Amino acid sequence: MMIPAAVNLGIELSVFAETAGESASLAVTTLGDFRDVSDVLPFAQRVDVVTFDHEHVPQEVLAALVGAGVAVRPGPDALLYAQDKLLMRERLSALGLPVPDWAPIETEQELADFLADHGGRAVVKTATGGYDGKGVRMVRAAAEAADWLALGHPLLVEELVDFHRELAQSVARSPSGELACWPVVESIQRDGVCSEVIAPAPSSRGRIADVAEEIARSVAENLGVTGVLAVELFETTDERLLINELAMRPHNTGHWTIDGSTTSQFEQHLRAVLDLPLGATGCRDEWSVMINILGGPAVGDLEDRYPRAFSDEPAVKVHNYGKAPRPGRKVGHVTACGNELDEVVFQARAAAEHFQS
Amino acid sequence: MMIPAAVNLGIELSVFAETAGESASLAVTTLGDFRDVSDVLPFAQRVDVVTFDHEHVPQEVLAALVGAGVAVRPGPDALLYAQDKLLMRERLSALGLPVPDWAPIETEQELADFLADHGGRAVVKTATGGYDGKGVRMVRAAAEAADWLALGHPLLVEELVDFHRELAQSVARSPSGELACWPVVESIQRDGVCSEVIAPAPSSRGRIADVAEEIARSVAENLGVTGVLAVELFETTDERLLINELAMRPHNTGHWTIDGSTTSQFEQHLRAVLDLPLGATGCRDEWSVMINILGGPAVGDLEDRYPRAFSDEPAVKVHNYGKAPRPGRKVGHVTACGNELDEVVFQARAAAEHFQS
Repeated sequence: MMIPAAVNLGIELSVFAETAGESASLAVTTLGDFRDVSDVLPFAQRVDVVTFDHEHVPQEVLAALVGAGVAVRPGPDALLYAQDKLLMRERLSALGLPVPDWAPIETEQELADFLADHGGRAVVKTATGGYDGKGVRMVRAAAEAADWLALGHPLLVEELVDFHRELAQSVARSPSGELACWPVVESIQRDGVCSEVIAPAPSSRGRIADVAEEIARSVAENLGVTGVLAVELFETTDERLLINELAMRPHNTGHWTIDGSTTSQFEQHLRAVLDLPLGATGCRDEWSVMINILGGPAVGDLEDRYPRAFSDEPAVKVHNYGKAPRPGRKVGHVTACGNELDEVVFQARAAAEHFQS
Repeated sequence: MMIPAAVNLGIELSVFAETAGESASLAVTTLGDFRDVSDVLPFAQRVDVVTFDHEHVPQEVLAALVGAGVAVRPGPDALLYAQDKLLMRERLSALGLPVPDWAPIETEQELADFLADHGGRAVVKTATGGYDGKGVRMVRAAAEAADWLALGHPLLVEELVDFHRELAQSVARSPSGELACWPVVESIQRDGVCSEVIAPAPSSRGRIADVAEEIARSVAENLGVTGVLAVELFETTDERLLINELAMRPHNTGHWTIDGSTTSQFEQHLRAVLDLPLGATGCRDEWSVMINILGGPAVGDLEDRYPRAFSDEPAVKVHNYGKAPRPGRKVGHVTACGNELDEVVFQARAAAEHFQS
């Protein structure tokens, strides 16, 4: 999804990918292992700026790039907090930013103590490697995390937040320190995966929008993030906002910006990592609704559904990632925009339904 | 500019180009001579549909493709009228569509007679090969076209239309016969080249919009056009609309649709040539203003101007074609959108100025 923004601005993209079949094959592609400095460094030295579409490049590799004088944005010191949830919680707590109650755990006793203090339920997370609900487990007894504890990987436990809904606040920050926030959005999850995004989040104008933006700005500045940062938030039943996760890249909760904002998160990410002035982040219409196409059609490909989907919903924008359908896989998304929320939600859901049945 | 639309819809583009350095290099590219059937046919047989970004592919080549069972859209029978202005004028006249007074000319006497009947001034055009003001000459005496007449190429002469402004009406038509029109736009020319487009054309609602749309629909249907058709129109001082030129492809006067319409002309062209249902053609804002970047900066490249242009005009969308600056060359365009025309024009001109000084 970075390609259209790069084409429009005449920015040459070079992609470092693990396999030739990845969706990024439209850009100049170098194949290699992102865990291997000897693969990554020669690639990185040929480009002006290195950035990422995931957070899994190891710190050793990032450090080697920085050591060789490569501009890495976001830099390793910021990415660390998107890679390691333990370090992220420690840092955000130290900054006084609002997070759920949490603790590092190494033993069943520590987990049992936390459960006892938090109503007998909590969420255990692996510090590294989780995404889309993986590496996250709800527990009611310490024994339920015994297998993870036995592995010896760093773990943390968090209170099960009593939340009204999930929000996400995206911001872009450039190396010069310029910041630009999009409006806070509501993110509706199904089975731990983002299913639907409403932008802006309904009934968010005023205090909620201000607090969400203040949190995202503070995270971006204090952690020295460059590029797009998405802050996933819980809006609690007692109307507080707590930081759930951080993503330091264009994020699923910002895909609505491609069609719904003056500047898409992909264009903004390019502007930010190239230290160019940021684009306007206003909404093109009052409402945008983005729905992920999860899994894809039961039979055939997304393209097979174009005739009916396009005919029924001529104003909905369809984004097809060119991936083979597979249960649970994000194979595309649809976005509808307009000034009546009910109508926009209906259009987006009707279009998405064509691709998921 | 077709690449972003193709990426979004997961449509694989294969480009047939004359040289590797062309802007289309982001797509899978085959090099060859578009005048040579033996170059074009093997390429055409590997794709589902062949379409065009110019109208210069010879009829013999097109006929060979059709003969070999290739889906060519628009087809040769339609393209003929975008390739040959004599045939176009004959056909439109036969259809009763509004065109300037015109005549084929082979001799100075015929031209002199036409001039005598039309106030002593007229426009001589070569039937084929002209674009952006080339192949067009204003004359006051038959001798002024002596060189062209001597070459023996087919020529026509047209009345010098007394026009108030130039308009353009774009429409897409699919092989199934579905049609979708964008609003009629005003096209401001400088030195025979489109400089600025205002969408919709100011004061065009009602009769002018209806007549422009009716003309474009009639041309598309009667000529059997598939894909995007742009009809360039004169709005005469006595408030008639006369057809100036036809383009059977996404056209400069439709570039505003990328940022200003729900469906861009590039996405719509792909939908149309693939015989998919067409997208909604409404305006995202009340006004869009597109300004061509002609020639580019006096010193350096477009990218060198990004810091100041982006900083001054954060809401303007910049499109950089990645071409080396050269006097008169279209190297990019900018589009501003909004609900106050004065403000939108100001933003677009201010941004364009950064790239042309």
